[in-house]
Amino acid sequence: MAYEYQVTRRVEFSDTDMAGIMHYSNFFRYMETVEHAFFRSLGHSVVLSRDGLNICLPRVHAACDYRAPLKFEDEVVIRLLVEKKGTRSLTYQIRFERKDGQEVARGRLVVVCAERQADGELKAVSLPATLSEKIQEAPPDLLAAGYLHK
Amino acid sequence: MAYEYQVTRRVEFSDTDMAGIMHYSNFFRYMETVEHAFFRSLGHSVVLSRDGLNICLPRVHAACDYRAPLKFEDEVVIRLLVEKKGTRSLTYQIRFERKDGQEVARGRLVVVCAERQADGELKAVSLPATLSEKIQEAPPDLLAAGYLHK
Amino acid sequence: MAYEYQVTRRVEFSDTDMAGIMHYSNFFRYMETVEHAFFRSLGHSVVLSRDGLNICLPRVHAACDYRAPLKFEDEVVIRLLVEKKGTRSLTYQIRFERKDGQEVARGRLVVVCAERQADGELKAVSLPATLSEKIQEAPPDLLAAGYLHK
Amino acid sequence: MAYEYQVTRRVEFSDTDMAGIMHYSNFFRYMETVEHAFFRSLGHSVVLSRDGLNICLPRVHAACDYRAPLKFEDEVVIRLLVEKKGTRSLTYQIRFERKDGQEVARGRLVVVCAERQADGELKAVSLPATLSEKIQEAPPDLLAAGYLHK
Repeated sequence: MAYEYQVTRRVEFSDTDMAGIMHYSNFFRYMETVEHAFFRSLGHSVVLSRDGLNICLPRVHAACDYRAPLKFEDEVVIRLLVEKKGTRSLTYQIRFERKDGQEVARGRLVVVCAERQADGELKAVSLPATLSEKIQEAPPDLLAAGYLHK
Repeated sequence: MAYEYQVTRRVEFSDTDMAGIMHYSNFFRYMETVEHAFFRSLGHSVVLSRDGLNICLPRVHAACDYRAPLKFEDEVVIRLLVEKKGTRSLTYQIRFERKDGQEVARGRLVVVCAERQADGELKAVSLPATLSEKIQEAPPDLLAAGYLHK
Repeated sequence: MAYEYQVTRRVEFSDTDMAGIMHYSNFFRYMETVEHAFFRSLGHSVVLSRDGLNICLPRVHAACDYRAPLKFEDEVVIRLLVEKKGTRSLTYQIRFERKDGQEVARGRLVVVCAERQADGELKAVSLPATLSEKIQEAPPDLLAAGYLHK
Repeated sequence: MAYEYQVTRRVEFSDTDMAGIMHYSNFFRYMETVEHAFFRSLGHSVVLSRDGLNICLPRVHAACDYRAPLKFEDEVVIRLLVEKKGTRSLTYQIRFERKDGQEVARGRLVVVCAERQADGELKAVSLPATLSEKIQEAPPDLLAAGYLHK
């Protein structure tokens, strides 16, 4: 049972904007990077159809609080914590920590487990046991911890 | 005094992902599109240095709730409402409405007015009067209105 | 029979990079914008399966020459000329012209008409008549014209 | 003296499009990734102002030939070869090789060494010795080698 995972990325030139910092929308791309790596660490692709499961995990909520900028070539640790495991949904807390120990941003993603119906529409369904049994919620005190500072 | 603005965009191929819908991070790029068009409608570039003002508007919070997907070539009305005008910040509510009348997503952006110091650091300052006097908050009942449905 | 089309776009903040100009990869996204608008002007979606055709148009070559930068909020006319109509392929010349009359970049895209086989692989096939009969090559002198300057 | 460098990347969900493959424009973002890693391997940031040099390396030409698609989670080796070292420019050949040994795409980038003038305009200048002395052209037979196949 896992409740956390982390990856390290280096901010790329194409991630920056004319303000000289990482564009705020790219934090959401980075959040997905750690989510997908977390799934791989559990032995799954987030494209669950690859595992023979006719389900997908559409996002229903995404948010980010920005404390400090990321700059080109900054190395950033992106750390996912499972905040809530619902019957049909997962909520992640995602922290962006620079190598100098500064937490620059903290995000949240809520994804729902959905099955594609014959008419193409999505219908919420329970998380498959094969996934659910590998995931648990992070300890409350870990989730509640304040921002890291150098 | 203005409290709303809207633009229409057509979802592009490069905005979609392998799930066949607009990638969730691109809603944040679209939010910025209407914000910047709103500023132009007030006679300003969001790059306020172009108006001789040594300030910028970094984002401190961004969020989006997703109700339904956007697909390639969908036309979407992106509607900005000024939710809060603080001394040093602006909060926008941003709605994504498909041409069929369905609101597919609703977002929020909080930007802070900041001045670049000699050491390169940003310091929060009051919104310049030239901007502040053109912007007002939207009526509460408009902000509180539920999602549009077809 | 059509051989050209153009759209106008305004460079967005998220299209820029820390050099203060549009990132070079985004010219390729813009090329696709005019290609798809060209198809719509002919009564088709570039997603030809929407017209009941089991074909797609993968890119086999893309190139761009850059003469001058595009900056945030620049309005740019993106003009597509059909350079070559092959039996199984289309080649476009694509010009980026700023509103001041300066051509800032010129690109080329080669797309092949392909059918998806039962095994998922793509096989080159002839352009469907319904498309081919609406498209012609641009006049050679138009294609050979030098860069516009102010 | 170095003439090649390579990095490995995994294709991300946000790199894909509704055709289920990596969007063609993202190959150009990946080309830049290996170029910048090559510079770091030489002890420089591609943002040369960080090394006290008032120069930049704008792209004047970019091209890519696509042989096969990249899919989500594919691992791809991106290999840069210095094709030409001019007095004021560098030309790279860049190869995309899947882990199964298939070369899926081959690109070319031409960058010019430029100095920012007092009026903000760029002027081509010689590559600084500190860079030039670390870079050499790859052997012609290596550059001329055909596409790898599994």
